[in-house]
Amino acid sequence: MDRIKPRTLSGFMELLPGPQMQFERMLESLRTTYSLYGFAPLDTPVIESAEILLAKGGGETEKQIYRFTKGDSDLALRFDLTVPLAKYVALNYGHLTFPFRRYQIGKVYRGERAQRGRFREFYQCDIDVIGDGKLDISNEAEIPSIIYNAFRSMGLERFRIRVNNRKILTGFYDMQGLGEQSGEIMRTVDKLDKIGAEKVRDLLMESGVSQEAAGEILTFIAITGSNQEVLAALEGYRGRNETFDQGVDELATVVKYLSAFGVPEENFSVDLTIARGLDYYTGTVYETVMLDHPEIGSICSGGRYDNLAGYYIDKPLPGVGISIGLTRLFYVLGEQGYFNEDMVTAPTDVLVLPMTEDLAPAISFATLLRAGGIRAQVYGEQKKFKAKMSYADKLKIPYVVFLGEEEISQGMVKVKNMATGDQQAMEPVAAVALIRESKETLAREKPIQEKQV
Amino acid sequence: MDRIKPRTLSGFMELLPGPQMQFERMLESLRTTYSLYGFAPLDTPVIESAEILLAKGGGETEKQIYRFTKGDSDLALRFDLTVPLAKYVALNYGHLTFPFRRYQIGKVYRGERAQRGRFREFYQCDIDVIGDGKLDISNEAEIPSIIYNAFRSMGLERFRIRVNNRKILTGFYDMQGLGEQSGEIMRTVDKLDKIGAEKVRDLLMESGVSQEAAGEILTFIAITGSNQEVLAALEGYRGRNETFDQGVDELATVVKYLSAFGVPEENFSVDLTIARGLDYYTGTVYETVMLDHPEIGSICSGGRYDNLAGYYIDKPLPGVGISIGLTRLFYVLGEQGYFNEDMVTAPTDVLVLPMTEDLAPAISFATLLRAGGIRAQVYGEQKKFKAKMSYADKLKIPYVVFLGEEEISQGMVKVKNMATGDQQAMEPVAAVALIRESKETLAREKPIQEKQV
Repeated sequence: MDRIKPRTLSGFMELLPGPQMQFERMLESLRTTYSLYGFAPLDTPVIESAEILLAKGGGETEKQIYRFTKGDSDLALRFDLTVPLAKYVALNYGHLTFPFRRYQIGKVYRGERAQRGRFREFYQCDIDVIGDGKLDISNEAEIPSIIYNAFRSMGLERFRIRVNNRKILTGFYDMQGLGEQSGEIMRTVDKLDKIGAEKVRDLLMESGVSQEAAGEILTFIAITGSNQEVLAALEGYRGRNETFDQGVDELATVVKYLSAFGVPEENFSVDLTIARGLDYYTGTVYETVMLDHPEIGSICSGGRYDNLAGYYIDKPLPGVGISIGLTRLFYVLGEQGYFNEDMVTAPTDVLVLPMTEDLAPAISFATLLRAGGIRAQVYGEQKKFKAKMSYADKLKIPYVVFLGEEEISQGMVKVKNMATGDQQAMEPVAAVALIRESKETLAREKPIQEKQV
Repeated sequence: MDRIKPRTLSGFMELLPGPQMQFERMLESLRTTYSLYGFAPLDTPVIESAEILLAKGGGETEKQIYRFTKGDSDLALRFDLTVPLAKYVALNYGHLTFPFRRYQIGKVYRGERAQRGRFREFYQCDIDVIGDGKLDISNEAEIPSIIYNAFRSMGLERFRIRVNNRKILTGFYDMQGLGEQSGEIMRTVDKLDKIGAEKVRDLLMESGVSQEAAGEILTFIAITGSNQEVLAALEGYRGRNETFDQGVDELATVVKYLSAFGVPEENFSVDLTIARGLDYYTGTVYETVMLDHPEIGSICSGGRYDNLAGYYIDKPLPGVGISIGLTRLFYVLGEQGYFNEDMVTAPTDVLVLPMTEDLAPAISFATLLRAGGIRAQVYGEQKKFKAKMSYADKLKIPYVVFLGEEEISQGMVKVKNMATGDQQAMEPVAAVALIRESKETLAREKPIQEKQV
């Protein structure tokens, strides 16, 4: 037979069973957290009409998009979950109840140049709240608090959600008479972390900003400290621009509510250098950094926008949303050795080994285990005992249960804890209780375990 | 602004939030059931190299495939989950532990001609057990028993898994001296339900089968009755063909174990007319019909094969698997009015309505609810009371909790059961207990509710 060498395309993540289980646990953490906050799951097609996906105009994205024809149709693969959301809300406007809160976890596609840690197929895990005409500011604080809880439920603790407000930036540049250049200035300021303040000053002046204004900008973005200190410093600019003042009010409200939502100040900070894109966001914006690995960049970003679907529908649809790029985050966590070795990645909690030809007693006991919510596999292969144990070992299955003639005749099962090597005969119901208790303990292990730095 | 009319491609299912919640519940039932039997989740890319996907040769599939180039790469979207599994096992052979049990739930793509109830993007929900060289017959009984439990957990009861064994068919046609024509004959016999026995006889004779052999074939496929009766009738053919005899032994074993696995005879039957494809399956084969809607065809099919990945790797990899086409099943269930109206499809269990300007008490109570596993949304919009209640009504949210000055000062919350209209003030912890109990009752509602026929 002519054989073809099996391979997976570069830029596409495909995991072995153990890591896949860790990835699933992270997905599950997100689904659970998003659901607990009353977000409805949404699923949209991976393929859409290219005209629909590119309605907004593509820019960089357009070059990366997977686009092809099938019959007469000009098709494309979605490159994010926001455009499909906009389409969905516009299409189903009359059937939705607003504020519409949806989460969507799905794969998106970008034909980027392949390089380490960059993916062409990757999971985005988004939440958005969409209002019909209006949307309360409290949503802008709730969204990062959900992300805080989502990361915590995965075991991530040393991260910080950085918050800013686009109105503050717009208002500030207006004050400086630089309103029209504000987009370009924000792009330059965005490089602060990378190139430092003096280089930013040079670049600003090269682009025609006066020395005085450049000084003002550098003073402004140098405002740091606790959230209250930053807010206090911003008060010093109040009264000179309406948009700015509104932005400060909003930011103060978001900071207040973030505390009410239970997010410790360690995990969020006002950061005036955050801008996030240029046209789309209009209010609060977010970025999230890992405190021990700032070089990774933002692992979760988003913000407030005023016009979700203007290119599809003549309705003002303001919203606020945030997105986790889970595939890249997973990759980065792996690179940094952040996975919890104590998390069970075995596909089953128990391997039931029938020691008789008749499998029926083993099947019955496995049924009892499953009724108790325990994952159980009956090992039905005709192999030597050693091979059976080796199977459990290799898969790191926590418990093995033996069912031989003796146990069956006594109505007992023999339970072996594979971690300790302890082995004891017990009644089936007691075995279920023991294994369930152990499973519940193990289930508390989170997929991520941060190293002490 | 130039607007583009929002639309979703035909042949692509996109659901409103309520039905989406039902779909998610079905996905969850499958994930849970598959996990309880010790299957590891697998996720493979939607895009693969066309050469890889078409290694086996496409036939009908090749015409339907979404295939395109990106740069120099000849790419295609997966059209099932079996070819990606074969690639995965061949690629990772040295890293997997066999028998390798995996489930995969994911979208696949086929550019079929659009028609009602046919989808170009649809979910397949597969389980397979792959052996390294050998695989015990007990797996061939376990697989349909898992499907039985999966369907039951969704609320489906009136279905029947029809089981046959390809060795019986191969052996039988060999006995008749029709071994070389057996593929064509099976295709003809497969039409029995549609065209009736006499038409099948005519077609067989037209294709060169002797009158006597055609008579033998019709007698054979007319064997019906209880599983034991069919097995007894098959005994009458024993001793004439080794493959046939082996098939009868396997079928008898599968029937015996299916009972041990707890599948009632009402839900599975031996059916000698089932053949399932032509080259791939070599042992037990399955189809599943809805008893009240046989016209829908098989809702879950699969079988035993001997050579999963021969076109990628020089290793005998026998396996057994089954697949549910969930998108089509969901569509059909909807058409037949099978969805359970009592299932909660609201995105949240509780809507918390703050009646004061300060949202903090509402946020605190929602946090308490979530800690108890209850989905809770704080309604933060500045709307009239009536509009807030209408939001809960429209989304069919089971409970609304009011937090006014009075309740806050007394440390109480006011809980309204939206189904009964009952409203009472209670302590927060009591409210959590009440809502949780109600949630647990409601969670017992399954997504499918069959009508009495």
